Order: sequence, then C-alpha cells, then structure tokens
Amino acid sequence: MERLAIIGLGLVGTSIGLALKKAKIPDLEIVGHDMEPTHSSTALRRGAVDKIHRNLFSAIEGAHSIILAVPVMAMKDVMTLIAPNLEPGTIITDTGSTKAQVIKWAEEILPAEVSFIGGHPMAGKEQSGPDAGDENLFQDAVYAICPSPTATTTAQTYVVSLAESVGSRPYFVGPEEHDSYVAAVSHLPFILSIGLVSSTTKSPGWREMSRMASTGYRDISRLASGDPIMHRDICITNAESIVYWVDEAIKQLYEFRNNIQEDPEALELAFIQAWEARARWLARKDSAEERPGDELPSSSTNMLAILAGDKVANRLQELTQTNKSDSSKYRKR
Amino acid sequence: MERLAIIGLGLVGTSIGLALKKAKIPDLEIVGHDMEPTHSSTALRRGAVDKIHRNLFSAIEGAHSIILAVPVMAMKDVMTLIAPNLEPGTIITDTGSTKAQVIKWAEEILPAEVSFIGGHPMAGKEQSGPDAGDENLFQDAVYAICPSPTATTTAQTYVVSLAESVGSRPYFVGPEEHDSYVAAVSHLPFILSIGLVSSTTKSPGWREMSRMASTGYRDISRLASGDPIMHRDICITNAESIVYWVDEAIKQLYEFRNNIQEDPEALELAFIQAWEARARWLARKDSAEERPGDELPSSSTNMLAILAGDKVANRLQELTQTNKSDSSKYRKR
Repeated sequence: MERLAIIGLGLVGTSIGLALKKAKIPDLEIVGHDMEPTHSSTALRRGAVDKIHRNLFSAIEGAHSIILAVPVMAMKDVMTLIAPNLEPGTIITDTGSTKAQVIKWAEEILPAEVSFIGGHPMAGKEQSGPDAGDENLFQDAVYAICPSPTATTTAQTYVVSLAESVGSRPYFVGPEEHDSYVAAVSHLPFILSIGLVSSTTKSPGWREMSRMASTGYRDISRLASGDPIMHRDICITNAESIVYWVDEAIKQLYEFRNNIQEDPEALELAFIQAWEARARWLARKDSAEERPGDELPSSSTNMLAILAGDKVANRLQELTQTNKSDSSKYRKR
Repeated sequence: MERLAIIGLGLVGTSIGLALKKAKIPDLEIVGHDMEPTHSSTALRRGAVDKIHRNLFSAIEGAHSIILAVPVMAMKDVMTLIAPNLEPGTIITDTGSTKAQVIKWAEEILPAEVSFIGGHPMAGKEQSGPDAGDENLFQDAVYAICPSPTATTTAQTYVVSLAESVGSRPYFVGPEEHDSYVAAVSHLPFILSIGLVSSTTKSPGWREMSRMASTGYRDISRLASGDPIMHRDICITNAESIVYWVDEAIKQLYEFRNNIQEDPEALELAFIQAWEARARWLARKDSAEERPGDELPSSSTNMLAILAGDKVANRLQELTQTNKSDSSKYRKR
C-alpha cells in the first residue's frame, strides 16, 4: 500500500482526491490534512481521502508522496514545518498558481534528499472550498509541471502520471516562463474581472444600474468571485509579470477609449481582429484537446471562412486592404 | 389576423420570432425581412416567421406592429426607407443596445401618427446569426422600454405585452438613463473582454502562452466573440458614457497595479470588497427573478455569512476595523 498525503483540502485538494479515487488506482491510500476541521471532515465525507489527520506531522508520516494544495503564501510555512520530518526519496509537489517563488522556497527549505516538482493544474471554478470539489475539475486541463533542478527522473515520471490520472495533459515548462505566461492568460483576466466589479459597484448609481446587469456582466465578473486570498498571494508572488500585463491592458483600453471618440474605423478593425484572434485560439484549443500536437491551418482567411461564413472575413479584408476613399464610411449591416 | 413584421433576422430577430411562436399567441402572423437572403431562409426554416419578404416594403405592408432588429447604425436608414409607407397608428419598436440616438432618429424621421417605443431585451449569447436564435434567449431577462414622447398608451401596453410574451421582465427607463447604465454593466464588460484579447494575442509570445489559457481566459474573453459591427455601433452611439466608464476602469486598474507593487493589504481589501459586491449582486438578482421588487437584507455582514460562511466576512472586518499594528501581516490561509 502506497500512501499519498494531500495537505490542504479546499477546492483543488479535494478535487484531486476525488479524481484519484475515480481513477481507481490500486493500492493507493490517500490521507488528508487541513487546518480548518470542517474542510477535512467534508473532504472525508465526500470520499476524497481515506483518512484525515488533524496533525500535519501525522498526515505526512510514511507518505511516499505529498501534494501541497494550500494558498501560495502558505507554502513556505508548510515546507518549513514538514522539512525536518521528511524521509529521503519523498516526492513533493504543489498546486500553486505561481511557480518561481514556490520552487525557490523548495530549494531553500526542503532537504536535498527529497524531490520537489512544482505543479499547476490549470482549472478552477467560481466556488471554492471542499464542497465545490469535483472529480472532473481537471479533465482535459493543461497541468503545468516545473521540476526543481534536483528532482529525480522517477519523481518527474510520478508527477506526470499523477497529472494524467486526474485527467489532465502534463506540460513541462520552466518556472519563470510559467509565471510570465500565466500572468497574461490567467492573472490578467482576474484583475480585469475584479476591476469591472470594483469600478462599477463603487458608483453611487450602482443600485439602479445593477438592475440592468445581465449575462455579459455576470460572465466578465465571474473571476471576482474567486478566493481573494488566493488572488492576493498570486499578485505578491508574480508581481512583476502581472504589473507588466496590467500596463499592457491599460494601454490597450486607452487606445480604445481614444478611438471611440476619434476613429470608429480603427476601433472596428481592432474589434474584428480580436474576434478573429479568439476564434483562432478556440479552434486551436479544441483541436489540441482532440489531437495533441496538431497545428492550425496556416491561412487565417480560410479559418475565418470556416468559422464565421464570409461576412466578417470580407470586412476584415476591406478594412486592411482597401484605401479609405471608400464612399460609405460605415457598412451598416 | 394581426400582422407583426420583424426587420432583421439575426440572433435577436430570430429569437423574438421563435419566442413569440412558442407563446402561441392566437391570430398573430409574423412576417420577416433581412437584407441577407440566407438569414431570411434560415429564420423561415426554423419557424421563427410565417413568411419572408425579400422586399422591405412588402414586409411592412399591412403590419400592425414592426420590430426593428438591425444593428444600431442601420436603424436610421431603415426608418428613412419605411417612413413614407407607414400607416397611421402603426406601433414600431426596436431592439438596439443604445436608446437615446435611436429615439432621436425616430422623432426626426418617423411620421407623428405612428408610435415609436424603444426596446432593449437585455440578453445575448456568444454566437450570432439566425442559426443561434433561441426561443428561450429572453427568458427572465430585463426588457428595457423607453417610449418616445409621442407614443400612445396603447402602444406602450402593446410593447409591454410583447416583452412579457417572450418571457422577459419589462422595465421602463428613460433613454439617457438607459444608455448611462448599460455603458457600465453591458458595454464596459465587452470593452474589457476585447481589451484582454487584443493585448494578449498581439504579444510575440502569444502562441506559447495560449497553450496555458484555460477556463478563466475563455470566460473573460467571451464577449470578444460578439458581433464586431454591433459593438462598433454601440460605441458610436453611446460614446460619452462608454468613455467615462473606460476611464473609471483604467483608474481602478492603475490603482491595483500600484498596490500590487506597494500595498498588498490594500489590494486584498479591494479583492474582498469586490468579492462581496458580486455576491450581493447575484443574491439580489436571483431574488428579483423569483420575486420582483424584493430587496436584500440590509446588513452586509449577515448576507456575507449566509453566502460564504464566516471566513471572508471575518477577514473583511479585520481589514476594515483593526489597526495595522497586527503582528501577522498576511493571514496565510
């Protein structure tokens, strides 16, 4: 019987337990620990773990591998606490949303005889806590894997199979690259989402205007319902990259704002290009999920024609290729 | 037999036809027209209209009421074309996303003997065109109604019942108020969504980083897949209010950006407040959908405790009420 310990039984820790249980891995015992007793009992009741320990040291005792599923800023403390009690050869991985700082802590704090492999399952949901845990949360998600320099090949293979067992697609990436990429595709989105909520709900007219808020507002504000502590920790440990991307977004919004007043044609072109860029991303994403490694057709016009019929593709060509002497300034429909 | 004409058979026009058909209103004939023949034939095949006319004038002939479901910038042209052919007493409404400009055109262009009532069903989806038409699109949505000064009471009652027939909740609002409210809750969201896509996909690293884009990116970028022409028209006809809200969002993002570098505690407080504001909005929205007119409990702490357990509520109190001499600068979990 091999023992796996999950430290932290919130949304992610509980979901990993549930997904591993669903995978019916033979001879695997899962023990869990969370500082908050109700989290532990919920995770146990839901069948995410076989056993819970209120004591952190009991939870890791005899564990062949340990998953740290606590907020990023708590990683350092947990590592410091468990470091003296780790047996040589233990495989330790985490699920934090930033990787460079976590790997730095692991190198500083953990003994050289254990293998630390940074991990980041790229999935989430609006709700948090063990009640929101879902055995399918990681299905088809990218699972970023950042081995520390001293991790053994065995440990790497183990974490890859762990990612595959929960239904994800392992993706090796360096910690700095990881952090700069997720700043754009994962952290900037939650900053924009929170920015929407903060700027609108502070307004004296919010109560009246909120009656008209509909599905668009609901979707774009969704990430503002994510765990505020998790978001804060991400900002602290990935500040430089996030600030870079917030600045890029501000520049873009400022350009839109000026074009709304002065150049509707440039605005339209930007809207069409964003429309196209998202359509291409979705198409690539879907094809990657079905057939990993596949590439998009190279011609963007073909892709657009497939996705949208000819209307937007034609308009894009008009705007990018014809000169501005065109007598009708705006196409109406 | 009463005749209703729907001019414009895209997502909204087709969905209205389908929803009215679902409501099985006796003795109502629905005729449709769209400049694009494939739109017309799709709407007919899907049963959204009883009959289509390739000629605009034939479509409105004998119509008791007319719904203009074309992009906002096309409204003026359509009004100009149909104005000479309208019979006295005809009720005309539209579905445009901005209202002040449309009502101004109606007053200038339409004969005094017809009644124009501005309308805006607050619902949408990622896809556009008649294939995406959905008989349930407007279910439980707010349907903004802005009568022009000369519209008869009969006409107002008619449009209210039209909104109710498609499953929506009619909401009377002045055109200027409407436009300033939707700038915040409907137009700012799509600008932020497009801003996310534009700023990230322009980056030379996009192809690499896009592999890590997940559900968060997908949701926050969703509105960038809306019709670019519709978005452009909204910006042209509601420029002042939209620019105001984009500026507010930029200020908010700039504050976040500075606090990421300098004041994580202020950042955390802002994240918690946004979390709370969205939870309160969702709770109010759900209760309004069940029992229109109901209000929230006034104590935000009670509401938070119901929604989230005590964790975040306690943290909010800590941050807002205790002084900063607290020895532990960040709560870790």
